[in-house]
Amino acid sequence: MATKKKAAGRGRKNAFYAQSGGVTAVINASACGVIEACRKAREIGKVYAGRNGIIGALTEDLIDTSKESAAAISALRHTPGGAFGSCRYKLKSLEENRAQYERLIEVFEAHNIGYFFYNGGGDSADTCLKVAQLSEKMGYPIQAIHVPKTVDNDLPITDNCPGFGSVAKYIAVSTREATLDVASMAKTSTKVFVLEVMGRHAGWIAAAGGLASGPDLELPIVILFPEVRFDQDKFLAKVDAMVKAHGYCTVVVSEGLRWPDGRFVSDQGMRDAFGHAQLGGAAPVIANMVREGLGLKYHWAVADYLQRAARHIASATDVEQAYAVGQAAVEMALQGRNAVMPAIERRSDKPYRWRIVEAPLAQVANREKMMPRRFISRDGFGITPSCRAYLEPLIQGEAYPPYRNGMPRYVRLKNVAVPKKLAPFELAL
Amino acid sequence: MATKKKAAGRGRKNAFYAQSGGVTAVINASACGVIEACRKAREIGKVYAGRNGIIGALTEDLIDTSKESAAAISALRHTPGGAFGSCRYKLKSLEENRAQYERLIEVFEAHNIGYFFYNGGGDSADTCLKVAQLSEKMGYPIQAIHVPKTVDNDLPITDNCPGFGSVAKYIAVSTREATLDVASMAKTSTKVFVLEVMGRHAGWIAAAGGLASGPDLELPIVILFPEVRFDQDKFLAKVDAMVKAHGYCTVVVSEGLRWPDGRFVSDQGMRDAFGHAQLGGAAPVIANMVREGLGLKYHWAVADYLQRAARHIASATDVEQAYAVGQAAVEMALQGRNAVMPAIERRSDKPYRWRIVEAPLAQVANREKMMPRRFISRDGFGITPSCRAYLEPLIQGEAYPPYRNGMPRYVRLKNVAVPKKLAPFELAL
Repeated sequence: MATKKKAAGRGRKNAFYAQSGGVTAVINASACGVIEACRKAREIGKVYAGRNGIIGALTEDLIDTSKESAAAISALRHTPGGAFGSCRYKLKSLEENRAQYERLIEVFEAHNIGYFFYNGGGDSADTCLKVAQLSEKMGYPIQAIHVPKTVDNDLPITDNCPGFGSVAKYIAVSTREATLDVASMAKTSTKVFVLEVMGRHAGWIAAAGGLASGPDLELPIVILFPEVRFDQDKFLAKVDAMVKAHGYCTVVVSEGLRWPDGRFVSDQGMRDAFGHAQLGGAAPVIANMVREGLGLKYHWAVADYLQRAARHIASATDVEQAYAVGQAAVEMALQGRNAVMPAIERRSDKPYRWRIVEAPLAQVANREKMMPRRFISRDGFGITPSCRAYLEPLIQGEAYPPYRNGMPRYVRLKNVAVPKKLAPFELAL
Repeated sequence: MATKKKAAGRGRKNAFYAQSGGVTAVINASACGVIEACRKAREIGKVYAGRNGIIGALTEDLIDTSKESAAAISALRHTPGGAFGSCRYKLKSLEENRAQYERLIEVFEAHNIGYFFYNGGGDSADTCLKVAQLSEKMGYPIQAIHVPKTVDNDLPITDNCPGFGSVAKYIAVSTREATLDVASMAKTSTKVFVLEVMGRHAGWIAAAGGLASGPDLELPIVILFPEVRFDQDKFLAKVDAMVKAHGYCTVVVSEGLRWPDGRFVSDQGMRDAFGHAQLGGAAPVIANMVREGLGLKYHWAVADYLQRAARHIASATDVEQAYAVGQAAVEMALQGRNAVMPAIERRSDKPYRWRIVEAPLAQVANREKMMPRRFISRDGFGITPSCRAYLEPLIQGEAYPPYRNGMPRYVRLKNVAVPKKLAPFELAL
């Protein structure tokens, strides 16, 4: 629960900021929002970034962001990836591993840290919530604010998650482009193009493929959502009908697509020539199905990291929101809040209006928001008008990075380490 | 051989234009160049586009481009894919299938076609050269001009091929972005990112991955070229060294990578749970090798059509050149040329200067230009400074398409059919 408490303690406290989980095209825009807001706040000293998320806090591996120029921090706004390194690491509960919490207090005290900003998705919200407990359960005055980020768009309460809009734009644009390609080839060659997209549990990213087709350019797109039980016969009949009607189609398949028995479609028990298990993707499996079931020539692609790193085609709306949640997190800290997260509230679809509100972290951590059924068309292979109305504002605007010599000018920070004051802490990774 | 002959015949002749082979992000820019130049030329009547390449000519399936507005034709400049449909279809020799050539003459005569513009790669140049023979061997006055296009960049004589610069930019930018992503994840998760790119025979596209790293942002990139005999042990040692030095690396692998015995690495004799052969990509095979050989966590992507359709990140230089070869083809036709191709000649690297010259088609068709060995680093896993000097100018400049509602405004032409005048022609596809 959110608690109101004045930022207190030995004068100006420093802030800790770190990035956690899979990175995005705009997580650094949130970092930029946090750091620029902290630099303006008289109540806050330096911002120490954790190298590789919470691991940096536990191992006292802190980066002094005050060593970076204003221009370098500003360039974070257009630089993809995680500038300070991320991690996949969950804190155990206070009961299970009290030593870790004591260590955090030790590090925070040593570096006079009173603000904790953690930038991540659902798992990271759990970490942030646990750190927030230091304040109530262990008496160390900290304000832990979670900065939302996830391409999966599956955090509850917030209308959407920073990071998602840019992936959605990338997938919508790429699907439109590749579909124009297969349309050209269909007469004598490829008739079905299969694109695999991220989203292990929720189909938000797959849904974005539906935006490839719109009133200005209608294209035959079939979407395979992880929320919809995969029915191979129905799927092949759908592709067959699409190809008969249009001559070609594109299939956007979520990596999280499952068979009715729960197995991932991507996990086909593949073996190479030596009998070794081979981890395939869902796309080649679906493509092969199209060939074997319908005798159609196919091509397939797996976007993987390309989609979530594609800062070159980021959504301007997403960049703006990513920055805004970073800034809002600092404002909440200055208002004495703890265990909260800035969430995006949608005021209207058209024109798109939104604002930042405060969400209690206890209601965010470890909960996943699936696609509502009303966003998926009746046959299960497309998006509905209400889904389109939800998605469209999130991909609005282009926020191109600057280029030099034909390449985007992404910044690499100096990442100067803060001198350690404590004995090393052993951490099993 | 190029022949000089005046555009002759019954008054103003019409032009035929068609697209052939794999399409690109800028093949429509060449179409735009051809059509706009023809519209300006008083000597040329209408431009009839072949629906699906040469097949449109054989089946008298012609599109009347005069039905398209100037705005629609202009929008081709920023629209990926092949606006008139492409094909993979090779004409047999005159000796083998005289009937096809007689049919072409029949169609060309019926529609008063005196100019033949064929937009494609090496195979298509062969088709264009064969059509050029109608003039000398069968007495039908036609001027056949080849408009170069191929993402593979493997046409001889021309310094580079329209279509390549944009794929190169896409791969360079995407590799830079995904490498920043894996750099962030490497501490606790993915350490090696594998990206599969096109190029069945030549490693030009794979080489573009090398541009991801530059003096402004050095990144650990390992490239697997089809020109270099794959040595698994040496490769794993290279990746191991990269990961030890940097903590992570990206591997850019060409789809055309082969084992020393000539088999494609992508063809691993994969079988699914039912024993069916499964066509995999090179990326999952390489990724699996990294896991089994080095125990490193990986992610992999296969860009496939996304790379050659990615008009959203096209190279401005490429768009300009694609348009220019279309325009130059028309100029050559007006000068009475036959069996030629506008080629790009590089005058200097820095500043980049180029001009269009004329290449005899007989020296272009069916020849592939491989990467020269001096473009590949001594260890076989990277590009040399001279390769960089060659590639860099080709990705210069951004030529963003216009957007509406967050999506690129790609045009779909009306493609109105020209009324048929002849009996149907049977074509085995």
